[in-house]
Amino acid sequence: MAERLVVIGGVAAGMSAASRARRLRPDMEITVFEKSGFVSYGSCGLPYFISGIIKAPENLVVYDAKFFKEKRNIDVFVHHEVLKIFPAKRTILVKNLENGKEFEVGYDKLVIATGARAVKPNIKGIELKGIFTVRFLEDGIKIKEFISENSPRKALIVGAGYIGMEMAEALVSLGMDVTIVEQMPNILGTMDEEINEIVEQELQRNGVKLLKSVSVNEFIGENGYVKKSVLSNGQVIDAELVVVGAGIKPNSEIAKEAGIEIGKTGAIAVNQRMETNIPGIYSAGDCAEVYHLVLNRPVYIPLGTTANKQGKIAGENAAGGNAVFKGIVGTAVFKVFDLEVARTGISEKQAKSEGFDYVATLIEHGSRAHYYPGGSKIRVKLIADRKTGRLLGAEMVGKDGVAKRIDVFATAIHAKLSVDEISDLDLSYAPPFAPVWDPILIAANDLEKKIKRN
Amino acid sequence: MAERLVVIGGVAAGMSAASRARRLRPDMEITVFEKSGFVSYGSCGLPYFISGIIKAPENLVVYDAKFFKEKRNIDVFVHHEVLKIFPAKRTILVKNLENGKEFEVGYDKLVIATGARAVKPNIKGIELKGIFTVRFLEDGIKIKEFISENSPRKALIVGAGYIGMEMAEALVSLGMDVTIVEQMPNILGTMDEEINEIVEQELQRNGVKLLKSVSVNEFIGENGYVKKSVLSNGQVIDAELVVVGAGIKPNSEIAKEAGIEIGKTGAIAVNQRMETNIPGIYSAGDCAEVYHLVLNRPVYIPLGTTANKQGKIAGENAAGGNAVFKGIVGTAVFKVFDLEVARTGISEKQAKSEGFDYVATLIEHGSRAHYYPGGSKIRVKLIADRKTGRLLGAEMVGKDGVAKRIDVFATAIHAKLSVDEISDLDLSYAPPFAPVWDPILIAANDLEKKIKRN
Repeated sequence: MAERLVVIGGVAAGMSAASRARRLRPDMEITVFEKSGFVSYGSCGLPYFISGIIKAPENLVVYDAKFFKEKRNIDVFVHHEVLKIFPAKRTILVKNLENGKEFEVGYDKLVIATGARAVKPNIKGIELKGIFTVRFLEDGIKIKEFISENSPRKALIVGAGYIGMEMAEALVSLGMDVTIVEQMPNILGTMDEEINEIVEQELQRNGVKLLKSVSVNEFIGENGYVKKSVLSNGQVIDAELVVVGAGIKPNSEIAKEAGIEIGKTGAIAVNQRMETNIPGIYSAGDCAEVYHLVLNRPVYIPLGTTANKQGKIAGENAAGGNAVFKGIVGTAVFKVFDLEVARTGISEKQAKSEGFDYVATLIEHGSRAHYYPGGSKIRVKLIADRKTGRLLGAEMVGKDGVAKRIDVFATAIHAKLSVDEISDLDLSYAPPFAPVWDPILIAANDLEKKIKRN
Repeated sequence: MAERLVVIGGVAAGMSAASRARRLRPDMEITVFEKSGFVSYGSCGLPYFISGIIKAPENLVVYDAKFFKEKRNIDVFVHHEVLKIFPAKRTILVKNLENGKEFEVGYDKLVIATGARAVKPNIKGIELKGIFTVRFLEDGIKIKEFISENSPRKALIVGAGYIGMEMAEALVSLGMDVTIVEQMPNILGTMDEEINEIVEQELQRNGVKLLKSVSVNEFIGENGYVKKSVLSNGQVIDAELVVVGAGIKPNSEIAKEAGIEIGKTGAIAVNQRMETNIPGIYSAGDCAEVYHLVLNRPVYIPLGTTANKQGKIAGENAAGGNAVFKGIVGTAVFKVFDLEVARTGISEKQAKSEGFDYVATLIEHGSRAHYYPGGSKIRVKLIADRKTGRLLGAEMVGKDGVAKRIDVFATAIHAKLSVDEISDLDLSYAPPFAPVWDPILIAANDLEKKIKRN
């Protein structure tokens, strides 16, 4: 009998694992169970589907179940939820959500790619119609339907993280009056204030109201539809659409019940080979931890790129390979209105709380030659180790040329370069694309000076 | 008496050196002699000044002589040519080009930043009016004046290098009918054919005629103005404007006469401290060699970014410091119509001629998430060492997101990363800026597979 690989979850990590295993092992029997109705889609595109930049939900889907069956000989079952894992007998209990039937399936190798779910805070009235999270393709479809049926004029976004920012842009573009409430005193927890202040200006410039250090106490509805949100400061916001972006939680429960080790972060613990503490059981994607190369410990930073890389490694090893994924450096980028906002490594806030002996700098410099049109100022913040000068983190914000410039810093952090070495980098220069001293070099030079002065 | 620093040449390298020395040594006497009428300008902007994207020549000037005198206490003499260097007595012979007077000036430290000049090939009729090179700010002003006075309808560009490409775009944007002749069988000597074919398609799409393996035998004029160009294949091209982009040559003659060592490349030989073989005499910029970190030898690749970096190091050391510039990796980028074309490291052509044992790959992948508008295919070519997998070179071409992506490869080459390590990089992802598998990762993964198969 053929060796059997079962993958739980068919989005980024799961389908990467299945595809990688198939490429290496034409002989393996590969089955994927996905709880939702879609596989292999880009959930990062949901705000753009809601805004209408992307027309049809199918556009977000890379490949469908039929493609995987016909082209890759991978059996994909959508609307199938895995309820339990029995490592001792190497089986899982699956429920067909369409007919309610449960059945057991045996495996030789298992990849857990159950992903994560949006946190729905325990707020009175949260079950009202018009209140959504943005996590699954189905969420996007429901929000779009709600908007087209109810034409909400006012929207409230709970949480000023990446998804909150992207949704603010999407809803403003649909003509809505948007308010964001953030319970922390600052937006974007992973960024420092010098970056956040630029983002806040951009929100304001686009008419978005931002309330910080405020949470929602209660949602009040009419006929089952949300109408008002009562805030912790007593303020009442009228809003017929509420989007909750209050973080996500790993779907690690069935793994935990099966005796699979869960890390301190609450996500599934894996080694560099993406294997859990139970041999033959791998985990990848938003349900799993990932090693952070600056912090030198496992963290929970669920992102699509990491899910794809981890999935590929899990699939290769489940197929008998020996691939390794060393880890991430915490790179992220998002767009909010005309701004590009990016980060990599650790923030100054984090450097401080983690006890690093660091030096930081903040500079502003043009994205193109000063005389070439279309450029814009980029603000760059860098954090380096005081003794070695090794780069620990970078944050950037601006209207032009930010998104891919952050990757130079990400690469430098991977390679453990010092700011001294970064200031020597031979970066591309032509007036339409960069000034002769790229903002990257200006920032590194500046931090180098500060370190020498120490 | 104060220590005296003299800098020969006041463009990128010279003014960087003078400024750096001033910052470190408020006490030094610093004098700069510049042959032309301008200092501290960006000659890379000339095509955009000619096309009209940049309105006034002053826009290309970063700071003028007055600024350097008033704000930095640096004496700058424009229209002053340095004719000779006398290292034994530590003086130079200077000629004031406005009144013809010659005088000697003493120095304690000397920085030679004499730059380079455009090669004017020895073609019959090259002295005719309407034939230009594009090197100095004055060249740009003359071309612009010539165009506005003579309204040329047809233009010939000699040489299909970076400047030829940028000038083709500029002249087409002014409504001219443009032909490029290139004496080699391929355009862009530093790029491989897989990139060049895309560039050639873009030229064609914009109505530029390209003739390869052809040179100009003679220019024929009327009343002293160029009218026809007779090619080596017998063809005659009507053109009232000719731009010669046939490469540049280091201005190393006065250094050579003074006994300063000239490298095999014809440019001034310097160590990592930018010092020549004569102690106290430094050189930087387009007149000097630079160390190539992949080829592991000095090369002549004159570029503005390198000039600035070298100038800064020369200035620091001339001021008594001990700064080091390790070298370059050969990064370059240019824009031609809607295309961004970039390279770093060595090409496959070079890898072959230099005897590297290499593996290469070519991929195409989108610049943004497949469902996000505004993206475009990027073609990526990578070259790596067969045994170690270390990246040796990268070339990219596309309409979106090429220019700064090449910098990731430039950083990786600096850090001596293998393609295996590159494929692990935590690069930024959001639908408006990149697909979940960035073209960089796709290319690295692909080359990794080829290396493993070996």
